Amino acid sequence: MSHQDGDQELGITESKAHNTGEWYAELVQKAGLADYAPMGGFIVTRPRGYAIWERIQDHLDGWFKDTGVRNAYFPLFIPESYLEREKDVVEGFDPEVAWVTHGGYEELEERLAVRPTSESIIAPYMAQWTRSHRDLPLRLNQWCSVVRWEATETKPFFRTKEFLWQEGHTAHADREGAWEETMMRLDQYERVYEEVMAMPALTGRKPPHDKFPGAHTTTTIEALMPDGKTVQGATSHYLGTSFAEAFDITYADADETEHPAHTTSWGISWRAMGALIMTHSDDQGLVLPPALAPEQVVIVPIWQEETKADVLEYAEGVAEDLEAAGHRVHLDDRENRNPGFKYNEWELKGVPLRIEIGPNEVEDGEITLVHRPDGESATAGRDAVGETVQEHLDAVFATLYASAEATLEGEIREAESREEILGTIGQHGGYVKAGWCGDAACEEPIKDAIAAEIVMVPLDRDEAPIHEDCAICGEPAEETAYFAKSY
Amino acid sequence: MSHQDGDQELGITESKAHNTGEWYAELVQKAGLADYAPMGGFIVTRPRGYAIWERIQDHLDGWFKDTGVRNAYFPLFIPESYLEREKDVVEGFDPEVAWVTHGGYEELEERLAVRPTSESIIAPYMAQWTRSHRDLPLRLNQWCSVVRWEATETKPFFRTKEFLWQEGHTAHADREGAWEETMMRLDQYERVYEEVMAMPALTGRKPPHDKFPGAHTTTTIEALMPDGKTVQGATSHYLGTSFAEAFDITYADADETEHPAHTTSWGISWRAMGALIMTHSDDQGLVLPPALAPEQVVIVPIWQEETKADVLEYAEGVAEDLEAAGHRVHLDDRENRNPGFKYNEWELKGVPLRIEIGPNEVEDGEITLVHRPDGESATAGRDAVGETVQEHLDAVFATLYASAEATLEGEIREAESREEILGTIGQHGGYVKAGWCGDAACEEPIKDAIAAEIVMVPLDRDEAPIHEDCAICGEPAEETAYFAKSY
Repeated sequence: MSHQDGDQELGITESKAHNTGEWYAELVQKAGLADYAPMGGFIVTRPRGYAIWERIQDHLDGWFKDTGVRNAYFPLFIPESYLEREKDVVEGFDPEVAWVTHGGYEELEERLAVRPTSESIIAPYMAQWTRSHRDLPLRLNQWCSVVRWEATETKPFFRTKEFLWQEGHTAHADREGAWEETMMRLDQYERVYEEVMAMPALTGRKPPHDKFPGAHTTTTIEALMPDGKTVQGATSHYLGTSFAEAFDITYADADETEHPAHTTSWGISWRAMGALIMTHSDDQGLVLPPALAPEQVVIVPIWQEETKADVLEYAEGVAEDLEAAGHRVHLDDRENRNPGFKYNEWELKGVPLRIEIGPNEVEDGEITLVHRPDGESATAGRDAVGETVQEHLDAVFATLYASAEATLEGEIREAESREEILGTIGQHGGYVKAGWCGDAACEEPIKDAIAAEIVMVPLDRDEAPIHEDCAICGEPAEETAYFAKSY
Repeated sequence: MSHQDGDQELGITESKAHNTGEWYAELVQKAGLADYAPMGGFIVTRPRGYAIWERIQDHLDGWFKDTGVRNAYFPLFIPESYLEREKDVVEGFDPEVAWVTHGGYEELEERLAVRPTSESIIAPYMAQWTRSHRDLPLRLNQWCSVVRWEATETKPFFRTKEFLWQEGHTAHADREGAWEETMMRLDQYERVYEEVMAMPALTGRKPPHDKFPGAHTTTTIEALMPDGKTVQGATSHYLGTSFAEAFDITYADADETEHPAHTTSWGISWRAMGALIMTHSDDQGLVLPPALAPEQVVIVPIWQEETKADVLEYAEGVAEDLEAAGHRVHLDDRENRNPGFKYNEWELKGVPLRIEIGPNEVEDGEITLVHRPDGESATAGRDAVGETVQEHLDAVFATLYASAEATLEGEIREAESREEILGTIGQHGGYVKAGWCGDAACEEPIKDAIAAEIVMVPLDRDEAPIHEDCAICGEPAEETAYFAKSY
């Protein structure tokens, strides 16, 4: 785990099926995504890792801006008294805050929190900028890093003391506007999971006892990991008027009457990257969907001395055509590595599509294409190579999506009793749907026994529960609870 | 200066010519670019300000990537012992470091610095990732915020304890590669000033006594502000092998012999935005070059009740055509504001081009265009409006550039004696070129008398000095020194 390690074995040695945690840690390092920092709980995001995050950002940032969001930047530090003010509304972040106490040689008069989240520094400005109904909706977002001093084991992108994220904060004139906003951001998160990351996911509400403190409703994206645990992939909160009332975010309507605004907040962190890596990758290394791969296609030329010039010229032509068609392509023409070595290296690094070009391909005017996820290979004509590659990249996406979808569908089960919940999750992992009375106490025996919890309930509050009775206490069920172990 | 201020006067009340500092502070707030944070030295970057920074980023980030740079992300915190290690090479940042001492309720075993710059956390990883000459050049960059606890007065974007910047760090096999890198980044900074920000600038070297500590050569972009002071607009450092030797960044060449790498670092901060705002803006408010303006064109329709429908329909058509042509356009069809109010507001906010559309324009199939910087107006036909607007945006850019260029050219003077340097800068500000022996002591009497200093010397070390003798001590001159007061 030390970043001082020198020459490591190139390939992955751990098994995804048998040692998911160790496999993940090895993969992240060997695929060049991240290294461990000298301080426990922190990581260094290497270029191949950061490039994935940048592409996730690009997709979301474009959608946010298309739907009225404007980026801003608020200070890294929050005065302690500002955090205290937020305590009226939300649980304190005190146990998790990193504190700045000195500036240069001087002790500060007031400690400064390194932002664990920015509600308490953003809300006072939202109050200042919101005067009239014409100022609404006010939609702010910032991409930044936050620090939460959690004492758990480091897992790159899943659990780190500092992490990168985006936090959106909006104010609206009424409940309807704020609720639409909450659902629009949830939809955009679901879209980035499904359409960009090739990950089908569930959407739902957090049970009342697990909402963001102060929120009226916390909606969530839940993604199933291959070890049967769920990841909270992003959240979007409808905050009602509680924050607006605490921070005086009020507006004058057309009749000059003052009202509190209805606010929302929503965020996605680089944990989404962790979920992406864990979902698709395998014992050969990283697997990425085409939209997020730093290189979408690698061309590996295969030559002998006498065929080298022809093969390379042909390969360069293919590379140029692919670039012109807008694909991200890399021609691996290294002299000091043989094709087999190159195959392994690019499989480790997660390039979705490999094109092999040898003397046969040159002679026949063809290319050989190999899909990273399943090794499926095909031969195609040299002409219209840009379109051919697009079709194969689409096929790679479809393979990834279908595989994740099949897994998810098979991992949603039902149970009618406490014993059945425990047994089903214990044996299979995944989600177990059960009738639930709505009392947090009914989660306790599941939590205590197998550390599973209610990770969501259906978005629609009017949806009839799956069973008439609560699987735990036998009282009438109010909702369908999704039990699962969680990251 | 409080962010609690409520209804302010809309327009700028200070004069750029007479109270540059107060004018700037008022402008930044009233144009909606930034507000003051509750902690002294920190600011809140509002959406209109952040959008300018995003566009500067986009230009540079694209050029960086086109020339082999890959973005990464290193931790926000640096252990104190790592900073100490860097002290072998560079002056300590100790007096300016914000220290994290507590995580949650626990005191940390080792204090963590909030990054003031990242050499000391990046270099050890560059050492780890550099094994063979095939790993070079290694080019890393990160966009992030840094904290330097300076006790000076806050000036948004110019002087803040936290600021946004980009820091590039590269390693190369030899001096030539690293020097080319240094100059390429300097060229890219010059290009963003000249081609994007419409600001002609000087490029040069910092005098040896003012280099980045540990650097072999510090190159700089210097931009002249309207108050006659210069701003160091970006720097690019050739670090030689000193950092590589301190941090063991070595590589094996083709013969397996180990060599220290030659490294560079280079950065530009949001101070560039400050310089941009200060250069072009005026007593009516913000002035922006088209490439950086959140809206490039505002359409103000002018109607009476009986002409309203026609005017609005026509204006909407123009807006659609401009959007389709790729321009960022806003149609200000607010009912509760008259055209004069709208003109003033958009002038304050720095929209480069205004299009006025009234019944006459509708009848004649025309539009009226007004340039923000100089109020120049023209009438043009409704057809091909996208091209017409592009021509006018280009004209606005040319006006801004020509004005800044004329100012700069008139503000580079020569002097042959200490008295002449003092008198010329004292009377006119700007740059004064003078012969210099190369001894830092000869800067002292100028610094002591009028707080001006040697802000640069020519890039070309072989360039003959402007005069034979040092203007201060009379010894033979080695170089031409550019004296100026500096931000």
